[in-house]
Amino acid sequence: MMLFIIGLGLWNEKDISMKGYETVLKADEVYVEFYTSKLCGSNLKKLKKFFKKEIVKLDRKDLEDYCDLILEKAKDKDIAILVPGDPVIATTHIALMIEAQKIGVEVKIIHASSIISAVCALTGLHSYKFGKSATISYPYKNMVSRTPIATIKDNRNINAHTLLYLDLHPKPMTINEGIKILEQVDDGFLNNCYAVGVARAGSDFPTVKCDKIKKLKKFEFGPPLHALVVLSPKLHFLEYEFLRTFASAPRSLKKFVE
Amino acid sequence: MMLFIIGLGLWNEKDISMKGYETVLKADEVYVEFYTSKLCGSNLKKLKKFFKKEIVKLDRKDLEDYCDLILEKAKDKDIAILVPGDPVIATTHIALMIEAQKIGVEVKIIHASSIISAVCALTGLHSYKFGKSATISYPYKNMVSRTPIATIKDNRNINAHTLLYLDLHPKPMTINEGIKILEQVDDGFLNNCYAVGVARAGSDFPTVKCDKIKKLKKFEFGPPLHALVVLSPKLHFLEYEFLRTFASAPRSLKKFVE
Repeated sequence: MMLFIIGLGLWNEKDISMKGYETVLKADEVYVEFYTSKLCGSNLKKLKKFFKKEIVKLDRKDLEDYCDLILEKAKDKDIAILVPGDPVIATTHIALMIEAQKIGVEVKIIHASSIISAVCALTGLHSYKFGKSATISYPYKNMVSRTPIATIKDNRNINAHTLLYLDLHPKPMTINEGIKILEQVDDGFLNNCYAVGVARAGSDFPTVKCDKIKKLKKFEFGPPLHALVVLSPKLHFLEYEFLRTFASAPRSLKKFVE
Repeated sequence: MMLFIIGLGLWNEKDISMKGYETVLKADEVYVEFYTSKLCGSNLKKLKKFFKKEIVKLDRKDLEDYCDLILEKAKDKDIAILVPGDPVIATTHIALMIEAQKIGVEVKIIHASSIISAVCALTGLHSYKFGKSATISYPYKNMVSRTPIATIKDNRNINAHTLLYLDLHPKPMTINEGIKILEQVDDGFLNNCYAVGVARAGSDFPTVKCDKIKKLKKFEFGPPLHALVVLSPKLHFLEYEFLRTFASAPRSLKKFVE
């Protein structure tokens, strides 16, 4: 028998693939986790209704400390774990796959849409120009991580964009909060940076706004999830034109077109 | 009315999302393009059978030189264009969206799985550590592009992985061919690089193999599509463990774990 890790995609229950949908219907037991990401256009109740099946929600402990309980079941049954987005972007899933292999449980991944590629359609930014990504975390014991700023600097040095995820726990961080946190460890570097904020990717009502990052701090993006892209120092003309057309970018961005 | 650009996902007709499937069924006219990527587990005939609808194949000219013909139709009808992978990774789609907006046609993107995120589940490499990507093209008038090697160097300088796409035209390039082309413009830099080759992502029979890039040149990956990831100089322990477990990486890779 087998463990299926099935991506739910970006927004709601209909973002699952046909392959994923059929696999859920056939599975002996179905679980879902909203720990590594969120499915903001849906919830456990809607998922149960959509699949007409019992679905059990797993929390961080189930996934990380007690994953052997699930894995043992997958020795005799087909077990499906639903995860928002595309699976195995999170370290949690990588560890789960390695553990499964150790005890002889076969794992199959069923892919779905992810912010990693969807951000290109939303911002018009060229996929091949995205550099490393990072997460803006809530301060821990009043300490703010310098990793996101370091990543932006690394990327801008090679003319790459930076996709920044925003912390999900205890609640999804807004772009506005994220920028304020970045500013706490900024040495003035951000003053010259433009960025695009993306809210509700995959929904019928996304908000996409490009401006100087300092100005985005006051822009109202509406409900979650939010993500932020800090632009490369130089832009392709089509990137500029797309941002003007679909993200109300200011004309001042034009001077960065190469 | 509206233009829908709908992702078909990674492998075959069942990789489309439920949302995409329903939209195809409701659309007045349905097109598909296999120019910007390929759907190796399917073809036009299978798609028609799956959706029980007429589907017209578009070539490069239809998309780039005569896109206004399609866009005009979308003024009065719901038009769906199916594309392999997740839409708008290709510049072709970005230009199409900008043209649509100019003549007042609303565009809606329906996302699907993409190699950009799927490569993480296949290789276990951390998503946030991927740098810029590049395409290995067939030589043009005996000239080989230096862009892929330059991108690998840029990325390795910031300890990032490099996803390399392989040229699709006139036929999908193999990993073996791709490495041979890279070697033509290599100054010895590749001798120290490890890489992971990925074939048939999203299918039930992917091949994933990690080794020194020079050794992968002789490895048989089987049918397309192929993609290649050149590793960052330093690896996380879980990356190493995953590559050992699922990509038969050599033990010698361990010395790069930080």
